[in-house]
Amino acid sequence: MRILGIDPGFATVGFGIVDFDGNCFKTIEYGTVNSPAKTKTSDRLKMVYDDMSYIIEKYKPDEMAIEELFFNTNVKTVIAVGQARGVLILSAANQGIPVYEYTPLQVKQAVVGYGRAEKNQVQQMVKSILGLSQLPKPDDAADALAIAICHAHASGVRSRLLEYIKKENG
Amino acid sequence: MRILGIDPGFATVGFGIVDFDGNCFKTIEYGTVNSPAKTKTSDRLKMVYDDMSYIIEKYKPDEMAIEELFFNTNVKTVIAVGQARGVLILSAANQGIPVYEYTPLQVKQAVVGYGRAEKNQVQQMVKSILGLSQLPKPDDAADALAIAICHAHASGVRSRLLEYIKKENG
Repeated sequence: MRILGIDPGFATVGFGIVDFDGNCFKTIEYGTVNSPAKTKTSDRLKMVYDDMSYIIEKYKPDEMAIEELFFNTNVKTVIAVGQARGVLILSAANQGIPVYEYTPLQVKQAVVGYGRAEKNQVQQMVKSILGLSQLPKPDDAADALAIAICHAHASGVRSRLLEYIKKENG
Repeated sequence: MRILGIDPGFATVGFGIVDFDGNCFKTIEYGTVNSPAKTKTSDRLKMVYDDMSYIIEKYKPDEMAIEELFFNTNVKTVIAVGQARGVLILSAANQGIPVYEYTPLQVKQAVVGYGRAEKNQVQQMVKSILGLSQLPKPDDAADALAIAICHAHASGVRSRLLEYIKKENG
């Protein structure tokens, strides 16, 4: 099963794509989608949507896992990221990809084992779990990979995985 | 010039379409786009996007005017409406329609003359300005018409209007 993890943002969206066979991960691609700060909101939302749609078309993930928004005290930021998160979810929905959501706490618990883990600990664990030769960079991409790992470990995935494996074996 | 006013929301999005020739308004259509509360977020965002895209295709507005989000104390609501607002803006951007944003204060000032106007006063003024035979309902649609009126009265519109009129007259 191919999982697309998304660390939502407006200027920078992290993405990470992994294959998970129920036991092992294979890292397919990770990186960021960016929209320049000095551009119109509508153009930036279109960039984020178009770039993510392209990534979905290219890598054909089976499921999208996206982090829930942190309830920031800066409501302006929450709105901006909320809007971007809307078009990111739409990019999956428009290609028939189911979307799953996880809180930052769930992601940290799934990857590091406890919810108060530091950013660096999450990156170290992502590197170790995925067997990468170096720390995944930038942070947003590492977070996106962590979200994908969290999704792979979530309840419900294993039962769907069985169906995927059956389908693949004809 | 045809203006599409949007009162953003998640369960209910108000829309109002008016033609403005620099002096008079003509009301083309108004109403709401809805997404059922018990459906998945991704499906709801797709519904909102698809319905608004259909409205834009059908009525071919020249510009979209959308209200800025009220900084609600309920951050969960802000995120949900922010996401919906993202796909609404995208529906315009994907059809090349420029998007303009106004605060609730600007809308009330433009329509009623002062920023602390009550909902009912806004509706009364919308009815009067557009020469409607009755109060536009529901509230979300009335608000959307108010946003379209606000946009028509905003600086910058009249200069663009000249170009539209020139184009129409060949």
